[in-house]
Amino acid sequence: MELHFLGTGAGMPSKERNVSSVALKFLQRGGEVWLFDCGEATQHQILRTSLKPRKINKIFITHLHGDHIFGLPGLLGSRSFQNGEASPVAIYGPKGIKAFIETALNISETYLTYPIQVIEIGEGLICEDDGRHVYAKKLDHVIPCFGFRLEEQAQPGKLKAGMLKKMGLAPGPLYQQLKEGRDVRREDGTVLKSSDFVSPPVPGRIVAILGDTKYCDNAVELGRNASVIVHEATVLHELAEKAAEFGHSSARSAAVTARLANAAALILNHISSRYHKEEKMLLLKEAEEVFSNTMIADDFSIFPIEKIKK
Amino acid sequence: MELHFLGTGAGMPSKERNVSSVALKFLQRGGEVWLFDCGEATQHQILRTSLKPRKINKIFITHLHGDHIFGLPGLLGSRSFQNGEASPVAIYGPKGIKAFIETALNISETYLTYPIQVIEIGEGLICEDDGRHVYAKKLDHVIPCFGFRLEEQAQPGKLKAGMLKKMGLAPGPLYQQLKEGRDVRREDGTVLKSSDFVSPPVPGRIVAILGDTKYCDNAVELGRNASVIVHEATVLHELAEKAAEFGHSSARSAAVTARLANAAALILNHISSRYHKEEKMLLLKEAEEVFSNTMIADDFSIFPIEKIKK
Repeated sequence: MELHFLGTGAGMPSKERNVSSVALKFLQRGGEVWLFDCGEATQHQILRTSLKPRKINKIFITHLHGDHIFGLPGLLGSRSFQNGEASPVAIYGPKGIKAFIETALNISETYLTYPIQVIEIGEGLICEDDGRHVYAKKLDHVIPCFGFRLEEQAQPGKLKAGMLKKMGLAPGPLYQQLKEGRDVRREDGTVLKSSDFVSPPVPGRIVAILGDTKYCDNAVELGRNASVIVHEATVLHELAEKAAEFGHSSARSAAVTARLANAAALILNHISSRYHKEEKMLLLKEAEEVFSNTMIADDFSIFPIEKIKK
Repeated sequence: MELHFLGTGAGMPSKERNVSSVALKFLQRGGEVWLFDCGEATQHQILRTSLKPRKINKIFITHLHGDHIFGLPGLLGSRSFQNGEASPVAIYGPKGIKAFIETALNISETYLTYPIQVIEIGEGLICEDDGRHVYAKKLDHVIPCFGFRLEEQAQPGKLKAGMLKKMGLAPGPLYQQLKEGRDVRREDGTVLKSSDFVSPPVPGRIVAILGDTKYCDNAVELGRNASVIVHEATVLHELAEKAAEFGHSSARSAAVTARLANAAALILNHISSRYHKEEKMLLLKEAEEVFSNTMIADDFSIFPIEKIKK
C-alpha cells in the first residue's frame, strides 16, 4: 500500500499546499485506489501524479467542509472521460453528501458513464471489501466529522512444504490439515505439530486516516496499534488553544494521539498556510518530541506503508 | 480594461489549460474585477496572478456545465478569508445557479462574511452599473447558455477651454452651454458653435464575452461593432461538424462571427486539450484567414483592451 498525498493544506488552497485529499493505492490489487476527501482541484493534482481516476473505486469523505468536498463533482465528471473500464464508485460520507453530489451533478447536467453509490454513514463498520474492513468513528470538529480505520485481514501462515518433503512426506491431505492448524498423528504414533510446519500468520495492516479534529479519545481508538495514523496538524502548540476552538489540532496533540494509540508511525497533514515550506520542520520537531516516528506530508508526498519504520 | 484569462481549456482541466474563467479588470475603477465563468480551481489560478478575490464584485455565468461553475463555491468561501473590505458580490447566471450555490454553501456550512445576490437571468439588459450596461442573449449550446455584451456609456466630448480663453472669454455659463452642445449667440451677434469648441464624444467600449456555442446569429449580434469578442474555439475546422453536435465552434467559425459582427478584434479561448501548446498556432492561423485581427488566449494571458489593434 502507498499513501499519496494530493492536498495537505488547511481551509484554503495556497501556492504550496492544496486543500485536503489523500489517495491510498493498493499495489497488489491492480493499483486500485481509495480516496480520502476530495477538496477543490484534487483532479488537477491527480493530473500531476501517476494515479488514474478510473482506478479510484471508493471515496471516503471525513466531513462536509468545502475544502474536503468541492473537488468531488469535477473529479466524478472527468472520470467519465477516462479511457478504460468505467467501473462503479462507492462514496462514503456524512449525511448531506448525497444531496451535495446529486445537486451538483444534476444542475450541471453531468452524466456519468458509470454507476455511483453514495452511502451516508454513521459510526461502526461502514465498508467490507475482500478482506478489508473500514470502521468510522466521530471526531471532535465544529461540524460532524469522521475518522476512518482500515483493517486488513490477517494473512494465514504459509506451509513449510520443503521441510515436509525432506521428511519424505508427499503432498496430500496431511499438508492440508497442517496448513489449517490441525496437528497430525501419524501411523507410527508420532505427532506432527502444525505450528512446527506453518509460519505464523501475518497480521493485517491497519491504516487510520482521520479528518479535522481537536484532540479526542475516538482518534486514539481509531489509531490503536495502527501501522500508520494520518492526522491533521493545523498549527504549532503555541496556537493550540485557538485551533481547538475551531476543532483543530496542533502537531503536538497529533503526536499525543499517536503515542496513546501505540501506533507504529504518524504522518502529519492539513498544515496551515501560515507555515511555509521551511517552517514545517517546526511542526515536525514539535511532534517528534512526543512521538519520534513522525513524518510530515507535502503535496505529492508518497509513503509506501511497508517501508515505514516500525 | 484588461482581460485576464484564468482558464482557457475545454471540458476538463489539463496540465496546460484550466477550465473556463476570464476576469475583466477595470483599471480606472480601483481595479474592480468582473469574472466570467468560474470553473474548478479558478481560485487556485487567481493565486498565481495579481488579481485579488475581494476586488471581484460581479460574476457572470454563461451556463451550468461543471467546467464553468464548479469553482464558484470555493472562490466565494475563500473570499471570506481575504483581508480588506468584504464587499457584496452579485452573481448572474441561468436558472439553476441559485440552487447550486445555495446547496453547496449550505451543505458545507460555508458562512460568507459578505452578502451575495444571485440573479437568474433571461435575455436582455441584465445589469446596469455606473454607466456600464450588460446585455445577455442565448447562444446555441447543448444546454441553455448565454453570451454577454458589455457596453460602456460614451464619454462626452471635452470643452476646448484653451481656445475660448485665447479669445478672451472667461469661464462661466457660456462654457457650460457650449459643453452641453448648445450654440451661443453673443451680444455682438456672432455665434459660437458648440461643435467648434467641444471634441467629439468618445464612444464607449464594447466587450463581448461569449459562452460555449456553435455558430449562431445571436453571437454576431452580441459582438456587433465590439472592441473585442472573446469566443470559444474548441477545435479546428476539420472537426467542426462533430464539435457542432456538442454545441461547440471551430476557430474558423469564431472568426466568421467576428467578421460578420464587424468587431475590431477576436480572442479565442476554450481550446480542446487535443491541441498542445505548439498546435495552437493552427487554430490561430485558421481564424486569421477569415478575420485577421485574431489572438489566442493561454492561461494567464492578459490583454489590455486599449492596446488591442483596431
